[in-house]
Order: sequence, then structure tokens, then C-alpha cells
Amino acid sequence: MADINSHLEIGVTTGPIRGSRKIHVGPLRVAMREIDLEPSSGEPPVRVYDTSGPYTDPAATIDIAAGLPPLRREWQLARGDVEEYEPREVKPEDNGQLGPDRSGGVPPFPTALRKPLRAKAGGNITQMHYARRGIVTPEMEYVAERENLGREMLRQERDGQDWGAAIPDYVTPEFVRDEVARGRAIIPSNVNHPESEPMAIGRNFLVKINANIGNSAVASDVASEVDKMVWAIRWGADTVMDLSTGRNIHDTREWIIRNSPVPIGTVPIYQALEKVGGIAEDLTWEIFRDTLIEQAEQGVDYFTIHAGVRLPYIPMTAKRVTGIVSRGGSIMAKWCLAHHKESFLYERFDEITEIMKAYDIAYSLGDGLRPGSIADANDEAQFAELYTLGELTKRAWAHDVQVMIEGPGHVPMHKIKANMDKQLEACGEAPFYTLGPLVTDIAPGYDHITSGIGAAMIGWYGTAMLCYVTPKEHLGLPDRDDVKVGVVTYKLAAHAADLAKGHPAAKVRDDALSKARFEFRWRDQFNLSLDPDTAEQYHDQTLPAEGAKTAHFCSMCGPKFCSMKITQEVREFAARQHNNPPRHGEGDQPQAGGGGPAAIAEAEEGMQQMSEKFREIGSELYIGAGGREHD
Amino acid sequence: MADINSHLEIGVTTGPIRGSRKIHVGPLRVAMREIDLEPSSGEPPVRVYDTSGPYTDPAATIDIAAGLPPLRREWQLARGDVEEYEPREVKPEDNGQLGPDRSGGVPPFPTALRKPLRAKAGGNITQMHYARRGIVTPEMEYVAERENLGREMLRQERDGQDWGAAIPDYVTPEFVRDEVARGRAIIPSNVNHPESEPMAIGRNFLVKINANIGNSAVASDVASEVDKMVWAIRWGADTVMDLSTGRNIHDTREWIIRNSPVPIGTVPIYQALEKVGGIAEDLTWEIFRDTLIEQAEQGVDYFTIHAGVRLPYIPMTAKRVTGIVSRGGSIMAKWCLAHHKESFLYERFDEITEIMKAYDIAYSLGDGLRPGSIADANDEAQFAELYTLGELTKRAWAHDVQVMIEGPGHVPMHKIKANMDKQLEACGEAPFYTLGPLVTDIAPGYDHITSGIGAAMIGWYGTAMLCYVTPKEHLGLPDRDDVKVGVVTYKLAAHAADLAKGHPAAKVRDDALSKARFEFRWRDQFNLSLDPDTAEQYHDQTLPAEGAKTAHFCSMCGPKFCSMKITQEVREFAARQHNNPPRHGEGDQPQAGGGGPAAIAEAEEGMQQMSEKFREIGSELYIGAGGREHD
Repeated sequence: MADINSHLEIGVTTGPIRGSRKIHVGPLRVAMREIDLEPSSGEPPVRVYDTSGPYTDPAATIDIAAGLPPLRREWQLARGDVEEYEPREVKPEDNGQLGPDRSGGVPPFPTALRKPLRAKAGGNITQMHYARRGIVTPEMEYVAERENLGREMLRQERDGQDWGAAIPDYVTPEFVRDEVARGRAIIPSNVNHPESEPMAIGRNFLVKINANIGNSAVASDVASEVDKMVWAIRWGADTVMDLSTGRNIHDTREWIIRNSPVPIGTVPIYQALEKVGGIAEDLTWEIFRDTLIEQAEQGVDYFTIHAGVRLPYIPMTAKRVTGIVSRGGSIMAKWCLAHHKESFLYERFDEITEIMKAYDIAYSLGDGLRPGSIADANDEAQFAELYTLGELTKRAWAHDVQVMIEGPGHVPMHKIKANMDKQLEACGEAPFYTLGPLVTDIAPGYDHITSGIGAAMIGWYGTAMLCYVTPKEHLGLPDRDDVKVGVVTYKLAAHAADLAKGHPAAKVRDDALSKARFEFRWRDQFNLSLDPDTAEQYHDQTLPAEGAKTAHFCSMCGPKFCSMKITQEVREFAARQHNNPPRHGEGDQPQAGGGGPAAIAEAEEGMQQMSEKFREIGSELYIGAGGREHD
Repeated sequence: MADINSHLEIGVTTGPIRGSRKIHVGPLRVAMREIDLEPSSGEPPVRVYDTSGPYTDPAATIDIAAGLPPLRREWQLARGDVEEYEPREVKPEDNGQLGPDRSGGVPPFPTALRKPLRAKAGGNITQMHYARRGIVTPEMEYVAERENLGREMLRQERDGQDWGAAIPDYVTPEFVRDEVARGRAIIPSNVNHPESEPMAIGRNFLVKINANIGNSAVASDVASEVDKMVWAIRWGADTVMDLSTGRNIHDTREWIIRNSPVPIGTVPIYQALEKVGGIAEDLTWEIFRDTLIEQAEQGVDYFTIHAGVRLPYIPMTAKRVTGIVSRGGSIMAKWCLAHHKESFLYERFDEITEIMKAYDIAYSLGDGLRPGSIADANDEAQFAELYTLGELTKRAWAHDVQVMIEGPGHVPMHKIKANMDKQLEACGEAPFYTLGPLVTDIAPGYDHITSGIGAAMIGWYGTAMLCYVTPKEHLGLPDRDDVKVGVVTYKLAAHAADLAKGHPAAKVRDDALSKARFEFRWRDQFNLSLDPDTAEQYHDQTLPAEGAKTAHFCSMCGPKFCSMKITQEVREFAARQHNNPPRHGEGDQPQAGGGGPAAIAEAEEGMQQMSEKFREIGSELYIGAGGREHD
């Protein structure tokens, strides 16, 4: 199914996703996938959102050492508002004190770097800046085409509860521009990451998911991190955060960005801390600023900045069960306490914003005081920080810099909606980006599920992007399998949220899969699923024969009796007898006691002649063996 | 960890759950587990609900061929209202047409059967009947003790949204009696299943979960079904449904019931269909009635009866995407259409009720018309049936027969609450028992998760028992691993629901685990989790050394830097300086912009002297390597 491209010991999975064809739509050649259905279905192919980049395109040549083609470069240069310049030099401390020859570390990315771009002096190249000036960029057009996915084929009425969102029937480039201008959506797009395919994060677009990768002092290396990035986007990660620490941090990031078709986020304070030998109180604004420039030049699309961890909020965490669990939050808390000073991230916020706008890096305002346990959910510290993030949002927006807001964490179900409501209120509808939340603390090993529950709910309520959690959360570093399970879990949670919001592009795939299930088109069921490989493998464990995949039965009921088969026949029979079956009562809510005498009489009339015919046609079909309810 | 008891080739897992001690509480010796924490914690053991029966009790002798001891037998006989009688003879068709010697089939359960019990002529031995006469039975006392779990140690305020439930601070036997009398809870307790440990299903008790087992024409055998039952209750299944079909169905059920400490449910129409060679239209009331008696004598505790699939509702399913997906529902639909008659289950409902009350079998009124896809959720057919189930509930209650109501299925998030609200309204607060629901159709292979999301939500809204779904749903028959994953997923969903409802016994375990996490008590974290084996295994994949389990760090951050460790120190420092940290603002909702100038000044004052001290104490502790945010 997938061949392995190996270069410099970096191997990644390539080749089409099972049952899907890569397509490129419209003048901008927007990448999508199409799933062809069996001819017997009489149905058109199902078009799905695709984050996997060129790796799943058989026509693409993948060379990890060369990186991906710079899709957006032309658009950037055509705007005439950027300049090339000599980059900052890579220093030993960028890679964890490796010397200038970087011996013993990850090799530098081999292709001669393009020179970095930035806005011409005093300029502003953010998508928000263009949007507010009424300019529809190619990035916005790309997003519009990408989000429209399947809406053309939509024949059903809108059905959902969107909690005040404003999801359009059809996404126009102008709609995208307006959402970005209002700050309700962001298009993360560092000018130095031209390889990325434009995507939007916002409440009125499809719910997105993020996957975290990154080495740490204990495990992993660059090859497996690049592999995990490609693997994560194959299964649907919309953005990837590189949370690497320790040695090789600069070079690892370069390999990842150059090969990533999705936006890359980082937490720059992690690297800044490395540069001061891990001593939080030795951090300075100058070192932090230098790190921002370093990462800006590499092409990081969004920075998590914990600027809301203010000095007066820190004591609010003292009585918590789990204190401060955000690493960035605890670094800043330690700095603030040690110096007895307000956070330099807060104090220097406008200076940071100046950097952001010169490269179009989006803020992901970090929730350094988020709860780390059910006990600490929705407390004073958490919401104090949230309101500060709202204040900072407005300050960033004053410079047309894109912003999203990070959210918790660990929250019991009954406290989830308050998080969304307060975020909308405090942060002026800037996109919310939450980690789960986990709805209970008692299932380590299953925290992709405890958090998937909270993620689906908060996504429904309005969160724009869900940061995944893997089964290894709280226990260890995720491996490749964990990354896949985390991504698929979050993809289904995000999709469930889209469905519940009544997103017009969402239900098409559910209906296609359910119809395939009802019609025993097994291959279509596998191919339409989020993970066709696992679906088929599970099926084959019970019924491995190739013939079973086209058989009109499944392993739950056996070959001779199947509830779906019975229903199918009932329906065919009813259709032959009555093109329009009798209606029973008005509306979709029956009276208590359901179907009064009149309705029953009507039904009896409608069924009158069916009885004998049915015996003729149907009786002999269901002789034999046993089964089980499908679900 | 577990030794294997093997008899007649039936092996089951026994031995304590890792880190737990079996305890027996009170005069009725109610079975529970206690998890001891490390002495360093200074915390008492955590008491948890235990469904695993004698299998996890090292003091118990397990002999599968002898069955479990008849815990309730004495209580039953003491009431003086039952009689022994000669049972119905086992017929070849009971076991799928095996001859009287049953050759080629499963061996009959070897121990000479007790004669069955039933109510004396004209009598009523249901728990509801006793409850309504003001009698507190030992079963009710047992339930009260069992549900109280940990409430004694509760020091926190109630915190939850219970949507109108009436959960008491402390469960008294009288409270149990009252809930059963009102029909808001059931205690499934067939007089012929004295081995079962009493448990309650109701909105004001802990949310319960059910696991389905059962062979089918395609796979499995009796040994693996008994093993799956013991395995399912080990991980937390509160009841088990035996959905076996095909040959050996009678004997398989006998082996399961005799060895089950939890209530067993069945769908009798499955076996009745076997008896007529799989031809639905050949089903008769007489055959069905005989099957009820057969299973009543064996000790089945609740029967799924699809009496709400009425003739006039069947055409309402004709335009569905997935028609009728319930097996029982489709059997009855076929019968109704073939005979052009109202369902005999509906017509003979009062006669069925007479049987139920003579053995104290609870109704689980089946939702034969539940939706099988997102597209069909909350439609006319589904709710027509629900209101009929409400009508039947009242008819059963007129005879003091216990009732719960089955619910869907496949429902997008925004339509879940309507299911609960309508069920409460239509069925007079009879306990709701739902299958998931799945919140999207697009993730076969992950339907334990798609349904776990819906299960947690509907459990929060008021569903009393959640029927599990395994990863193999829609694809194949679950094996042992699938059963465990399904049970743990549903256990965490049920617990999340208890938490969100503000159940007083729920949060104790979350807090204990989170505190252990914060204090780096790794073993306590594993032992307090729903699946200690998996939690430890995941931990050991990254840090296998035994020493790492007592180390004050984890693999995410490495040995030298850890956000939790930083916070811990910040807190210790703050505590030494200030027994009461300065407060900032009133209430738990900060003003927009968080912490005004006054609050900041106050904080600065509070922090004044901390700064230097902190440098002295803390600085040298955090030299070195890298990390990652915990979550």
C-alpha cells in the first residue's frame, strides 16, 4: 500500500490512502481526496478534506533532503511587500550547545537555504492586514475552495445546533476574507514556510486538529520526528506542533518545516530555556527575542506565547491539586517569582507583535495556568489568565496580527461549555484551540478517549482547533502507533462536532458510509472510513475470505440471517406496493402512546395486500442460522 | 498476576486486580475493592465499586463446573413467597436441534440443577412489589451499601449539573426502596439467579455499563463466552447480555448464568427464532412463551422485549438510510408484515408481564426501531416506538414489574439530549439504557470511541446504563481484547457522567489519582486507574527501569526539568512564605482584563520577600535537559 522513501536515514510513508485518489481542484489546484464507490452504488465519488500533502500523490516526487515545493512563494513575492535579507547566524546554543560544526548532532538541512523573507521596513504582511484592507489573497481563495468540499452535492436541509456560529451554506473567498478581518479565523502562514497549503482555523470553518511531535531529553531523534509529522498528516492532522527540546532543536525543526505541507507551531520559550541551560530565572527578553527571530526565519507558522501568566495570578494556583501543569506556564511562573517581576512576555507583548507581523506568524496565546486535573477546572487562576489573553488579543489585533487562544486541559463535562462561553466573551471570538479537555482523570492509557469526549463537545460548542492527546498521555512518549490513534480519535471528534454544528459539508460522508453499510458494500465502508486499513483488518479477523467482502452479510449475524438484509427486503417490498407509504400523524413527533386508532387503520389498509405477497417473496430467504443485533 | 482456573476446558482469569484488595463491607458483606496508596501519601485507601465477583478474591475457590455460591438464596426463601417446582424439560430445539443426548454440542452444566423457584400461585416477587409495600429487602440494603462507596470520606461540596436527577448525599436502604417503588430504578434479580450480587440501575445511582457477549453462527464457543463474561466483569461490566444464537444456546447460557455474579440479560426472540428454523413468520406466541419460561427457569435477570415495534410504525422506516438495524426489531417487523397483524409481543404484553412477576425478571423494552445511522436519528419511527414503550411501562408497573427502556444507537451530538428528555417524559422516569449512541458513522474500527462520546453525554443527561460498543462494532465479533477495551471505554464514560452529575462518590478517585500524579507516586497512579496493567505497560515502554517508577520525573520532561516539579516547589515556597496567599478580586470570575492595578500591587507586596529566598532555594534544582508540556 505504501512504499518507503528513504533518504539520509529519514524514511516516511508515501502512497495513496487506501481507496482514495488525490485530486487538485480549481485554478489554484487545491489538494483534496476523492473516494470512488462501487459502480453498483450508482453514487458519485465522495470528496474529503485532505491534509496529507504531496506524500499521498503518486505523481509527486518526494525528496526529504530537498523539501517540498514552495507552493506559496509566487503569491508572496507578487504582493511586492517583502524583502530578502541575510539571516541570523545559527549559534551553538540553538542546537543545545553543539559546536559550529554540529558534530554529534543532527545534520543541517542539506539544501542551501533560501534567504528569509520579511516585510519591508515598517510593513505588515499578515493575512489579517490584507483582509482588513479588503484584499482577497490567494491563500483565502485556496481556503474557500478547500472548505467547500462536497457542498455542491449537498441536497439535505441544514440540521444542527451551532451555538451562535455563522456557518455559510457556501464558502466564498470574500467570506474567508471577512472572517479573517474580524479575527474569527486565522490562516497561519509564515512567509518563510511557503511549502504549507493554506488552511483556516475558525469557528465557522471545519473543526481542525493539531498533533504534537517532538523529541525530549529521554527519547526520539530527527528521523522519527519527520516520519511522525508525515504520518500524522496522512491521518488528518491539520497542523503539527514541534515540541522538541534538548540538543539538535534548531536542525530538527528545519527538517520538519521544509517537509511540512501543514502549518507548524512551536513554543519558543522551550528553546529559549535551553539556551540558558535550563535555568528559568536566567531567561531574558533578549534571548527570547533572538529565539523568535531564529524560528521566524525558519518558517514557524504560529507561536505559543504564555503572556497571560501574570505575576498576580501565580498565587491563585497555590491551593490547586495539580498546580501549574503547563510547562511554559511553570517556566514563566518561576521566572516571575524569582525576579518578583511581571512577566517579560506580558511587558514586551507589543514588541513581540512587531515581529509577528513582519513574518505573518500567528499568536497562539498559551494557557499556562490551565487546570491539570478535574479538581482544578474553571478556577480563578484559569479565568484570570483567560481574560488577560482577551486583552492581549485586542492588542495584537490593533496591529492586524492573527491570534488564537489556547484552552484546557482537564474539565468535567458540566464545566466545558462555560469555557467556550467565557472564551468567546473575553477574546472577541478569536479562534479557540483546546487540549481535549479530558473529562475524567482516572483512565491513564485511555486519555485519547477521555479527552476525545471533551474535544467533541467543546468542538461542537465552538472550538476551532482541537489539540490531540495520545494513549501515552501522562505516561510516556507517543510512538508512531500512538500518533495515529491520537489523530484518528481527534479526527472523529472534530467530525462529530462539525455534524452537530450542522456544517453543510459534514454529513455527506456519514450518509455515504451508512448507505454502503446498508447495501453491504464492504469495500466502500472501509474506504470511506477514517482509517480504512484498520477497518479492513478488523473485518478480516473474523471473516478473512476475500469473498466475504462482497458477501451480503456480516460476521455478527452470519450468512443466513441479517437484520439489515431483512430491512432491505421489507423496504423493497414496501416500495413495490406503495410508492408513498402511508403517513402516520403530522410532524416528526408522535403523540404520546404513538399512532392512534386512525393511524393504525390507515396502516392496516396500506399493508392489506402486502401480507400474502410478502410471504411469497420473502419467506424462503431467511432459513437458518443465528446472529446478533448489529449495534 | 492472574492464575488460570481450568475445568472442562473452561479457563477464566482470577486473582486480584493489580494494586487492589477485595473487601467485604457490613453485615451483608458487600463486595468492594480498596486501593492502598503509598505510605508517603498520608492518604487512606480509596474504595471503588467492584463488579468482578469472587474471581478477584484470593480467599474464594473458583470451580466453573460448580458455579458460584447462591448469595441470595437464603433471602429469597426467607420471604416465604416462592415455591420449588419441576422445571420444563430441555428440548432438542433449545440447543439448536441437538438430540436429547446433546452429542456434538456443549456439555450440559454438570452440577445437578437446583429446582427452579417461582412465586406461589398468584403471587408477585418483584423488588418493585416489595418496595411498593414498604418492604426494604436485603437486596436494597446491599445496593445502598454498595452505592455509598467513598461517600464517608467526602469532604468537598457537591459540584455538578444533574439535569433534574435527585442524587442523595448518602444512599439509605429506604432511598433505594423509594426509587424502586417509583420505577426510577430497578434491581434485576431473577429468583433463579441467586448467584448475582444485587445492583441498581437508575438515574440517581452510579451510571452502569453493560457488556454483550455471545457466540453466533460464525464463531466462538462456550468456553470463550464464559471467559469473556468473567473478563468483562473484571474490568467493570455491571451486567452482561448473552446474545448467543445458533446451536448450544441453552447450555451456553446455563454455564454463563451459574458463574455470573452480575445480572444477565438476553433477547428471547433470538432463541425463539432458532426454534422455528430462522423463519420469522413461523414464530408463534406459544413458542415465544415457552422460551420465556425456559430462560426464566435458568435465571435470566432481564429480557429485551421489542414490544414497541407495532405494525403501523413499520412503514415509517421505509425511507430511512439504514432501515431497521435492530435484529429483534427486524424479526418482529417481518412477522408483522408477513401476517399483516399487530405484533404478538404487543398484543400479549400483559401475559408476558405475568411471567416476569413470577420470577422477578425486569423488562428491558427494546428499541427495535432505533436509528442505525446519523441520517435516521430522532425520526418519526424511533419516537413513535418510544411513546409506545412509555405506554407499556405503565402497563408493566400496574403489575409492579420492573422496567428499563432501551435507547439508540446512532445520534449526532445535538440530538442526544432530546432522546433523554423524551424518554423521561414518555416513560415516567423508568431507567434509560442506551447503546452508545455513536456520534458519527465515519469511524468503523473506532466505534467504541464514537459511541463513548455519546455515551458519556447521555449518561450525564440521565441515562442509567450504557451498553458498550467494542472496536469491532460493525466489522466482526469482539475478542477478549476488544471486550476489555469496550468495557474500559464505557467505564470511563460512565464515570465522566457521574462526575458531571455531581455524584458525591465520583470525584474521590479523580482527586486521588491527580494528587498521586502531582506527587510522582507512579504506582498509585497505575493502581488508581481503570486499567493498571495498560498504564504501567505504557509507562515502561519509555522508561522501563524499576527505579523510574519511584523517580520524581516522567518521560515527557526528562529527569531534570518537569513542570509539575516546578509547580510543586513554587507551591512549597509560597506556603512557607504565606499561609494564605493574597487574594485577587472577589468570587471566582475575574474582571475582564484580569487583576487590576490594586490586585497587582497586592500581589507584589505578597511576593516581595519571596524573590530572593526563591533564588536561594530553587535555582540550582533545575539545571539541564528538556521537556514537553504534560498535557
